[in-house]
Amino acid sequence: MAELAQLIDSEVFLAYATYTTIVLLKMMLMSVITAYFRITRKVFSNSEDTATFGKGENAKKFLWTDPAFECVCRGHLNDLEIIVPFISSGLLYALSGPALSTALLHFRIFIGARIFHTITYLTPLPQPSRGLSWAAGYAVTISMAYRLLTTGLYL
Amino acid sequence: MAELAQLIDSEVFLAYATYTTIVLLKMMLMSVITAYFRITRKVFSNSEDTATFGKGENAKKFLWTDPAFECVCRGHLNDLEIIVPFISSGLLYALSGPALSTALLHFRIFIGARIFHTITYLTPLPQPSRGLSWAAGYAVTISMAYRLLTTGLYL
Amino acid sequence: MAELAQLIDSEVFLAYATYTTIVLLKMMLMSVITAYFRITRKVFSNSEDTATFGKGENAKKFLWTDPAFECVCRGHLNDLEIIVPFISSGLLYALSGPALSTALLHFRIFIGARIFHTITYLTPLPQPSRGLSWAAGYAVTISMAYRLLTTGLYL
Repeated sequence: MAELAQLIDSEVFLAYATYTTIVLLKMMLMSVITAYFRITRKVFSNSEDTATFGKGENAKKFLWTDPAFECVCRGHLNDLEIIVPFISSGLLYALSGPALSTALLHFRIFIGARIFHTITYLTPLPQPSRGLSWAAGYAVTISMAYRLLTTGLYL
Repeated sequence: MAELAQLIDSEVFLAYATYTTIVLLKMMLMSVITAYFRITRKVFSNSEDTATFGKGENAKKFLWTDPAFECVCRGHLNDLEIIVPFISSGLLYALSGPALSTALLHFRIFIGARIFHTITYLTPLPQPSRGLSWAAGYAVTISMAYRLLTTGLYL
Repeated sequence: MAELAQLIDSEVFLAYATYTTIVLLKMMLMSVITAYFRITRKVFSNSEDTATFGKGENAKKFLWTDPAFECVCRGHLNDLEIIVPFISSGLLYALSGPALSTALLHFRIFIGARIFHTITYLTPLPQPSRGLSWAAGYAVTISMAYRLLTTGLYL
């Protein structure tokens, strides 16, 4: 990490910014899908939300639990767990001066894996597909973290 | 994103740092509120925490479930889901050289929306208020992501 | 935050990159531990995952609820809640030009507190230990946020 000030203007950083924005937009789309499921399946977690659909005891039946809804929520949480490490280590990775082609390979595999992961969560597809797409995203982040720890370690 | 090395010293970046810190402090406050609810309402999730209040079967009754507590937890999670995209796209947005007034407008709307969102979650206020404050924060992030994808796209 | 472009090449930034990567790797380890618990204790949340272990009604009994598994999930979520503020305010803190020794002190206390926190969650150790390790990580982040708001405030 010697000439960071130059590297921040590089194409690698630009690529990082582009892919991160796309991944974040995909993650934010999960909020909209969650809201869509809430409204179409009438699954609400807060008692004030059910007021539109009924009063008193009648409203309580709209509180919580629908398998498909729970599944979208878990997909969103899983996104957070894997996208947070990607964004932060990706930022440091982009600043550590990797070759452009290597960096693009990392970002493209990650974005493909996450989009496929969301599809397998929502369809849902039979098991090995979701596990493999999760593992691909995980491996990309580990690979970037490995480069960070080998190029510039300061404990 | 041409002259990033200059932009990092700009007032926009300083404003980004200030607002991000405030938003993070607000989010961390949620942890304290959660702990406060846990203790005052005696809602615990881990069996080792209940040991202070009773032994054996007596301790088990302190495990889990109180509507107000669940509500604070969901508010915290919702904070994470919306603040993570704001922080990362906001960082890249601050580096993409926007006009200071535009950037301040984005940051101020976001911080206002999130503080209002927390108030609606904790009071709780009747529905359209929480939904609207959530949508305002969401729209700010989309607007920043839109600028990022239009000014510098590198796929 | 006057001479940021120089500071980004500093040892403080290098130390930030190293400690952040380690904390992220620790957090990602939680995913593997969760998966390990899922498989060894047969706790699954998505119905398509249970297909390997049985068909029809027989498969349903593998869905959800095991105290130890829930506990690992909460540990992971707690990691997210506290590591996200650390990473973002840590990045801005590293750019605000602190003394190297002070910065190292912050990062080292944080990383130690989080590793100890995970140990107390998984063992589990009796209560004050987990609360104290959580408070140590929290205090480090507050201290960094305090420096940010006092050195460069732009509202």
